[in-house]
Amino acid sequence: MDTALAEARAAAKRGEVPVGAVLVSPEGKVIAAAGNRTRELNDPTAHAEILAIREGCAQAGSERLPDHDLYVTLEPCAMCATAMSAARIRRVYYGAADPKSGGVAHGARIFTHPQCHHIPEVYDDIGADEAEQILKDFFASRR
Amino acid sequence: MDTALAEARAAAKRGEVPVGAVLVSPEGKVIAAAGNRTRELNDPTAHAEILAIREGCAQAGSERLPDHDLYVTLEPCAMCATAMSAARIRRVYYGAADPKSGGVAHGARIFTHPQCHHIPEVYDDIGADEAEQILKDFFASRR
Repeated sequence: MDTALAEARAAAKRGEVPVGAVLVSPEGKVIAAAGNRTRELNDPTAHAEILAIREGCAQAGSERLPDHDLYVTLEPCAMCATAMSAARIRRVYYGAADPKSGGVAHGARIFTHPQCHHIPEVYDDIGADEAEQILKDFFASRR
Repeated sequence: MDTALAEARAAAKRGEVPVGAVLVSPEGKVIAAAGNRTRELNDPTAHAEILAIREGCAQAGSERLPDHDLYVTLEPCAMCATAMSAARIRRVYYGAADPKSGGVAHGARIFTHPQCHHIPEVYDDIGADEAEQILKDFFASRR
C-alpha cells in the first residue's frame, strides 16, 4: 500500500485526483503501479485501478489476472470494481472509504449482485488515514 | 444503430463477443465506432462502449462529452454504464437486454443510485432483435 500511496501523491502533483493503485502477481511481485491520469490522458476511464489492470493484462498477455491482488488507496468506483471482476482479481485491499463515488461499500455495491461474475476478497481501511489526508490536502489546495 | 450492429458483426468475425457501439456528436455526426476487442487487446476494459468513449474523448481533448449520445447493441455492463456517467453522455440507446451482465436494467443498476454523478437518458430495445440474433449466432457457432 505504500507504493499505492506514493502513486496517489504523484497524481496530486500532476493535478489529478490523488488515487494510486498497485497490482501484485501471485508471486507477490509488484507488476504494475499507477495513479489517476484522467485529465492528462483526456480519458474518463483512466482511473488508477484501470490503468494498473490494463498494464498487468498487457504484460500477462491475457484479459484475466487470476490470483493477482490489487491495492488501491480509495474505495473503487463502480467502473473499477466491475473491471476487477472482469479481470478475476483475487483480493482487493483499499484505503479510504468513498461515500460519494465508491461502488464497493456504497452506491452500486458491485460485488453484492448475483450477476457479478467474480467476487474478489475485499479488505478495506488499509492505510486509510494517509489516503484520506492526501485527498483532503489536494482538494483544500484547489479551493 | 445500424453502424453499431455492423461493429457487432465485425467483432464476431474477430472472435470477440459481438457488441458494437457508436458515439454521436451534438451535431449528429458519428465520431467514434467500435466493437469489443477484449481478446485482441488483452484488455478486460476494451468493451465497445469504453473504446468509443475513449476515442471520442481523445478527439475532443476532454474527459467529458456533454451532449454526446451513445448507441450500443447490448445493455451496458456496470463498468460501461459508470464510464458513461463519468463522460457525461447525454443519451444512451441500447439494443438487447442483458440479464446476465447488464448493469443498467439489471444487477448493479448504475443509474438508480443517488451517488450517480450524471444520469443519461436511456432508451432500450432499439434494434434489439438483430443485436440478440448476432449474439445467439456467435455463441451457437462456438459451442
